[in-house]
Amino acid sequence: MKSAQLLTDLCGTDRASVTDLLRARVKATPEAPFIVHGARRWSYAQGFDAMRRFTGFLDRQAGARPRVAVYLSKRPEAVFAWLGTTLAGGIHIALHRAHKGAVLEDLARRAKADLLVTEAAAWDRMPPLESCGIGRVLFVDEVPPEAASLTARRFDWRDVAASPLGEVRPSSQSDVISLLYTSGTTGRSKAVLVPHGMYARGAANIAAALGYRESDIMHDWMPLSHVGGQLHMTLATIAAGGCLAQYDTFSRTRFWEQIAEARASVFFGFANVLSLLMMAPESEDDRKHTLRIGLIAHMQGELQTEFERRFAIKLGDSYGMSEGEPMTLPTPDTPPGSCGKAGPDYELAIFDEDDRILPPGRLGRIAMRPRVPNVMMKGYEGDDEAAVEAWRNLWFHTQDLGRIDEQGFVWFADRLKHSIRRGGENISSIEVERTLLMHPDVHECAVVGVPDQLTGEAVKAVVVAKTGMTIDPRALHAFASERMARFMVPRYIEMRDVLPYTDVGKVKRDTLRDIGPAVWDSERKTA
Amino acid sequence: MKSAQLLTDLCGTDRASVTDLLRARVKATPEAPFIVHGARRWSYAQGFDAMRRFTGFLDRQAGARPRVAVYLSKRPEAVFAWLGTTLAGGIHIALHRAHKGAVLEDLARRAKADLLVTEAAAWDRMPPLESCGIGRVLFVDEVPPEAASLTARRFDWRDVAASPLGEVRPSSQSDVISLLYTSGTTGRSKAVLVPHGMYARGAANIAAALGYRESDIMHDWMPLSHVGGQLHMTLATIAAGGCLAQYDTFSRTRFWEQIAEARASVFFGFANVLSLLMMAPESEDDRKHTLRIGLIAHMQGELQTEFERRFAIKLGDSYGMSEGEPMTLPTPDTPPGSCGKAGPDYELAIFDEDDRILPPGRLGRIAMRPRVPNVMMKGYEGDDEAAVEAWRNLWFHTQDLGRIDEQGFVWFADRLKHSIRRGGENISSIEVERTLLMHPDVHECAVVGVPDQLTGEAVKAVVVAKTGMTIDPRALHAFASERMARFMVPRYIEMRDVLPYTDVGKVKRDTLRDIGPAVWDSERKTA
Repeated sequence: MKSAQLLTDLCGTDRASVTDLLRARVKATPEAPFIVHGARRWSYAQGFDAMRRFTGFLDRQAGARPRVAVYLSKRPEAVFAWLGTTLAGGIHIALHRAHKGAVLEDLARRAKADLLVTEAAAWDRMPPLESCGIGRVLFVDEVPPEAASLTARRFDWRDVAASPLGEVRPSSQSDVISLLYTSGTTGRSKAVLVPHGMYARGAANIAAALGYRESDIMHDWMPLSHVGGQLHMTLATIAAGGCLAQYDTFSRTRFWEQIAEARASVFFGFANVLSLLMMAPESEDDRKHTLRIGLIAHMQGELQTEFERRFAIKLGDSYGMSEGEPMTLPTPDTPPGSCGKAGPDYELAIFDEDDRILPPGRLGRIAMRPRVPNVMMKGYEGDDEAAVEAWRNLWFHTQDLGRIDEQGFVWFADRLKHSIRRGGENISSIEVERTLLMHPDVHECAVVGVPDQLTGEAVKAVVVAKTGMTIDPRALHAFASERMARFMVPRYIEMRDVLPYTDVGKVKRDTLRDIGPAVWDSERKTA
Repeated sequence: MKSAQLLTDLCGTDRASVTDLLRARVKATPEAPFIVHGARRWSYAQGFDAMRRFTGFLDRQAGARPRVAVYLSKRPEAVFAWLGTTLAGGIHIALHRAHKGAVLEDLARRAKADLLVTEAAAWDRMPPLESCGIGRVLFVDEVPPEAASLTARRFDWRDVAASPLGEVRPSSQSDVISLLYTSGTTGRSKAVLVPHGMYARGAANIAAALGYRESDIMHDWMPLSHVGGQLHMTLATIAAGGCLAQYDTFSRTRFWEQIAEARASVFFGFANVLSLLMMAPESEDDRKHTLRIGLIAHMQGELQTEFERRFAIKLGDSYGMSEGEPMTLPTPDTPPGSCGKAGPDYELAIFDEDDRILPPGRLGRIAMRPRVPNVMMKGYEGDDEAAVEAWRNLWFHTQDLGRIDEQGFVWFADRLKHSIRRGGENISSIEVERTLLMHPDVHECAVVGVPDQLTGEAVKAVVVAKTGMTIDPRALHAFASERMARFMVPRYIEMRDVLPYTDVGKVKRDTLRDIGPAVWDSERKTA
C-alpha cells in the first residue's frame, strides 16, 4: 500500500495535517462513536464540538499558536484539550501524570505554557504555577477549594463548554503539534518537537498496517503523555474511524471484564502485558472475547506465539520512539518476535560503532533516515546540541540495538547501554540472559561487559541458582556454548545467592563487574 | 571506480585519516617534488620533515590537540603549519589574509587558538592577540620590530626549524582536522568543523576523477583559507603524488609565464579565470603550453567549450562547499556546463520548498546526504542551531539552486537567494539574465522577483541598452519568449541608463523592484 494512503483517501492529499485529518474524519462519519468513558460517550461530531469549544476558550484566554500544558489522567477532556489546542494551531505539552516534585516543576517550566489543564485530584502534586510562568489554570472537573490561594486565573470545564466554537486555524505538516518529553533514562529528559506530518502520516500508516476498521473499539489505557497514546491509539483510531474506550490504566484483574464491557476489538501494551495475561491458568473461555488485534511493543517471539495461539488474537509490533514513529510496521508475514519492516516513510539501517552500515543479520545500533519531509522530530527544544549529536552523519541515531535480516524484518534486541562490545561484535546482554535462563537450574541472571585488554570487553554472567540447586559454572558454560555464537558465551561466570536490585527493581549492573578469584574464568588454566 | 580507491591503494584502507595519507605518501615517494615556491623546493620527505618540526614546536608550545590559527599569504610555511598541526592531532583554523579589522578580530577570537602563525607583512592588519586570547605568535619570516610591544610570546621560523621532529599522533576519520569559516554572505560567517574523513576520501576521489598523476605540477594560487585550497589543491595533489607550484594569487598577465616557468599541467580557478584568459586575442601559440587539466568552478557551457577548443585543455568542475566536498565530480562524459555527477560518497537531490524531491530536470534547492560517515561537516562550532536548521529532515540544505538531469548530471544554476518563485516554479535570475544578454542591443541587465498576488512573485528585468541603441520592451519580451520557458519570461521590463552597483561591484537588487508606470508591463492593456 502507498504510504499514508488512508490520509489521501480521507483528505485528498498525503500532505494533510492532523487538523485536516480531524476535519475530514468528522465530515466522513459524524455520527460514529468516538470516545466511550464509563457511562459517557461522544460521537465524532460531539467530540469535534468539544474540541472547538476548547479552541474557543483558548481564543479568549491565550494568544495565537498557544502552548497548552496538560497534567491529566486518561480521560476524554485530555483528548479534547489536546486536539482543541491543535485546532487553534497551538502546541500541546503533556506532562506525565506520575511525575511530581522537582522533575515535574522542571518539565512544567520548560513547557512555557500559556495554560495548564489539570484536574482536582492533581492538586497535591501540581507544579508551582508561578515559578513555572503559568498564568492560567483550567480544572477539567472542578476547582478545588485550596486553589483559591493561587494567583493564576482559575477556570473549570464549564468555562470551556460556555465558549463559542473556536475558529479552526490551518496547520501544515511542518508545524509542531506536540512537545513530548523523552523518558530521560540518560540524563535530563529532552523536549521532542513533533510535527503534524509525523502524526498525520503515521496515524494513517499504523491504521492501515494493523488493519484498524471503522467498527473497531480500542481498549485504550495508554497515557496521552506517551507517543503511543497520542499516535498509535488516538490518532490511528481517528484515521480509521474507530472508537476509543478509555480506561485509567492497565489492570490485569479487570482486563477481560473491560474488554467485554467495551466489546473491544483492539488492545495495546508493552510485552509485560502479555506476561501478566498469560499468568492466568488456561481455560476454555480463553477465546471467548471480542479482541482481534493487539499492538504490543518489544515482544519475544515465544511469548507472542503462545499468546496468539492461546487467545486467538493477532499481535503486531511497531518500533519507534518520540523522535520518529512508526519506524517499523507489522506485515502479514512478520515472524513472531520481529517488529515488522521499515515503515514506508523511513529508511532503517544497523550501524557499527563508526556509523558504517552492517550487513543483514548483524547486531548493532538501529539508525533511521526519513524518506519524506516532516515525519520525524524537528529537534529538541532548547537543546540543539543534542539534536546535532543525534543527527551526526545525517542519520538519526537511536539508543537501541537490533538487527535487520535478509528479508528486511527488523528485530529489536536491547538498549544500547546494555550492549557489550567484544572484539568488533555487539552483544546484547538480554539475549545472553535469555539463553542462560533456559537452563533448568538457573533462577535469574544478569550479563555485563567487563574491560578486557585483548577484546575491549569480555562477557560476564552473574547467576543465581534455583533454591536447593547447585550450578557448576563449567557446565553452564558448556550449556551456553551449545546455544549461542562463540563470541557471546560468557567468559566469566559468578554464582551468587541474590542479584542486587535498585529501589525501582532494576539490576545494579555496575556492582557486577568484579572478576576476582571467586569468579570462574573459562580461560584460566586450572590446576 | 570504487570510492576512495586511491586512499585504499596508498594506505591499505578507505578509513585512513589525512595523517595516514601523509605518512603513506612520504613512504611511497619520498624523493618526489612536493612544493616549489620561487627558487625554493621541497621533496615529500623534506616537506614531511618541515611539518614534523612544526609538530615538535607545538609539542613544546601548545598542549594536546592544539588549535592553530594561521593568517598567511600563500607560501610553503602555510602548508607546513597546517599539516604539522594535523600530525600533532590538532585543529587548523585559516584566517583569510584579506580580512582585517572587526571581522578578523571576531574570527580570530572564535578560533580559540593556542598559537597564531603569521608573517611580518601582516603586522598592520594583525588581529589584537590579547583580546582574542592568543598567547603565542609565530612569524614565519621574522619578528617585526613593532612586535616587541606584544605581551604574547613571539617566535620565528628558526624556532620551528630548531625543534625536534614531533611525534605523529594518529587521528581517525571522525576527528576534526580543520575549522573553515564560511563566506558569511548571509550574516556572520559560520565555523565549519571538517573531519579527516571528508578530506582524506575527498582528496582521493578528486585526484581519481580529475586524473591527477605523480608527474603533475599544479599551478596553485588558491588561498589555504578556502576548502578548494586545502582539498582540491593541496590534499588531492598529495593523494596523487604531484607537485604544488605555489603563487601568491591569480594574475591574468603573468598566468602563461607562470605556467611555463613551473611547467604546470593542472590549473585551478573560478569561471572568471576563464573569461580573463579568453580576453587575450587568439594566437597560434594558444596551444603551446604544458597544461592538460583545469578544475574550474561554476562554468557556463559555452565558455567551457570555447576555452577547451581554443587552448586544448580539458576542464572539469566539482560542486561542493565547506560543509561537504566534493559533492559532484566530473566524469569523462560530463556535458559542458555541468559540474558532473554526485560524488561516490554523496546522494544529491533537488528539493521543492517543502523538501520534497523534484523529478529530473526541475530547478530547485540542491540538497545532500552522505552515503558514508565522516564525509561532511560535524557541525558549526558554537552554532548548533544553524546546524539543526541546515540538517532539517536529515538532509543538508545548500543555499544553491540547480538541476539534476535524467542522466544524473548536476547543473548548478544560481544562489538560492537570487531565485524567483513564480506559481510553484523556481526561476534562476542568472539564467534569465544570460538569455537577455544574447539580444544584440542589450549591454547589461539584472533580473529580480517582485511580489505578485496571483503567482507569489513575478519576473522583472532591468535592462541597459548598448550605447546609442534603443530597445523596445515589447520586442525584448518577444525575444525572450522565443528562448525560454513561458514562466521565466519577464512580465516587467524597465529600461535604465545604468545599473546601480555596490562598492564591491554587486548589483543593488533591492533598488530594482519598483513596478510603477514607467515600467513596461506585458499584461497591461495598452490604449
